[in-house]
Amino acid sequence: MELWYTEKHTLHSGITIKVKETLKTTTTPYQQLSIIDTQEFGKLMLLDGLVMLSEKDEFCYHEMLAHPPLYTHPLPEKVLIIGGGDGGTLREVVKHPCVKEVVLIEIDEEVINASKQFFPNIASGFSSPKAKVIVGDGIQYVKETKETYDIILIDSTDPVGPAEGLFSMDFYTSCYNLLNQEGILTVQSETPFIKSYAKIIGEVNKLFRNIFPIVNLYLTNIPTYPSGLWTFTMGSKVNHPIKNFQNNRFQADNMHLNYYNKSIHSAAFCLPNFIADLVK
Amino acid sequence: MELWYTEKHTLHSGITIKVKETLKTTTTPYQQLSIIDTQEFGKLMLLDGLVMLSEKDEFCYHEMLAHPPLYTHPLPEKVLIIGGGDGGTLREVVKHPCVKEVVLIEIDEEVINASKQFFPNIASGFSSPKAKVIVGDGIQYVKETKETYDIILIDSTDPVGPAEGLFSMDFYTSCYNLLNQEGILTVQSETPFIKSYAKIIGEVNKLFRNIFPIVNLYLTNIPTYPSGLWTFTMGSKVNHPIKNFQNNRFQADNMHLNYYNKSIHSAAFCLPNFIADLVK
Repeated sequence: MELWYTEKHTLHSGITIKVKETLKTTTTPYQQLSIIDTQEFGKLMLLDGLVMLSEKDEFCYHEMLAHPPLYTHPLPEKVLIIGGGDGGTLREVVKHPCVKEVVLIEIDEEVINASKQFFPNIASGFSSPKAKVIVGDGIQYVKETKETYDIILIDSTDPVGPAEGLFSMDFYTSCYNLLNQEGILTVQSETPFIKSYAKIIGEVNKLFRNIFPIVNLYLTNIPTYPSGLWTFTMGSKVNHPIKNFQNNRFQADNMHLNYYNKSIHSAAFCLPNFIADLVK
Repeated sequence: MELWYTEKHTLHSGITIKVKETLKTTTTPYQQLSIIDTQEFGKLMLLDGLVMLSEKDEFCYHEMLAHPPLYTHPLPEKVLIIGGGDGGTLREVVKHPCVKEVVLIEIDEEVINASKQFFPNIASGFSSPKAKVIVGDGIQYVKETKETYDIILIDSTDPVGPAEGLFSMDFYTSCYNLLNQEGILTVQSETPFIKSYAKIIGEVNKLFRNIFPIVNLYLTNIPTYPSGLWTFTMGSKVNHPIKNFQNNRFQADNMHLNYYNKSIHSAAFCLPNFIADLVK
């Protein structure tokens, strides 16, 4: 028997992946969580039937969510990750020698546990002494905490279900208020190739422009995500991602990365015309 | 009844697209040719069961095959397109005011006819007075012709079947010999995300380096192609794509494009680490 996992990205198209084995499938208090093993992409984590990550291409997402903002800020010491319970973004953030503390707040503890069990390489950041994990509601946290941060990264699912409130003016304003003087907020902001998602890119950009003086969209490539092309939106209080690229720190850190590098830092912010039009 | 077209990109993964209608399916002397209509991507042309183009995202491929080399050469007047029977690359090339003649040599006349019938917007370049269409074998043509060219663009299918000989030292050497003093050869060179294709990127690059002093890989995003990320390899006799970008001509031409622009011209040549490693 051949089993194929098919994810519909719209009502009319999707991706299909041959499954070697279903390793886990469970209903958490927040969502359905499944782990499948595949020949092509290695192990995948699915939430509510959508690919959250694959072993093969997760680096394209996690490196690009973390490093562009961290190498735009002159000296990020305290970082907040909202969502990102798989630990991939955390793994990238703790690589920065200047970072002293990373708080990760994930609503669904079972995502964290599943990642530790099935994706030890992705979950490796959890064992860093810099990491502080909170199981809880990120929206409530940013409203109530007295902590402040240099960088906030929103590593969320699509804006339906538990992540819906993460795409709102209220939430972004709360994040802004926690940011230090040179603070940066970066959010995953979906794909430009599918109409309903492309709309979100424009909306997030508009909300960010109401709050931040410097707002930029940037891109990465992830084959297991709809269309293969993904966007992030970065709002910055002071530093511009191109003009203020922290080259000295980047050179000194000398990380061994699979995707991000100096030229990609700038190139990712260059937008094809049809994408630039979404944020005009 | 719901009909879904599923293209396996490897034995273990693929894309699946809901079909509104099959408009044509025929066996030409060279390949199976099908035209399907879909909700998500508009009309698609399939050759031997693989997506050649969709109305929705063909601009990402055709603009990026044509404009980076044409805005690297100081004054391209004569251009040769091998393959590209749909006319999309031709449509982009004839937009350049400096181009006086474009020869397109396509082995399969039925591709040209189907494009004219079902994709009038893509085939529009065929009606340009600059266009000269030859139905024939590109490999034989480059060996025998006495013509010379400023730019040669290889707009081929994958290196199996009719296109196999288009990925060889012999063929690239013949192309080099037709190029004028500042000539440029650009070929589509597959995706870096799938092992068997990634191997081709490295092989093409190596062959090019044996012939051209300046060789560069660059990228575009095409959701209907395997992985969504695609590469082109450019070999140039004199001009470097970044250092010799023809900004004055680009500004003067003022084309209305959907993908290519000045910043994308440079950004497309910036490679994520795992892709740069393929051409080291």
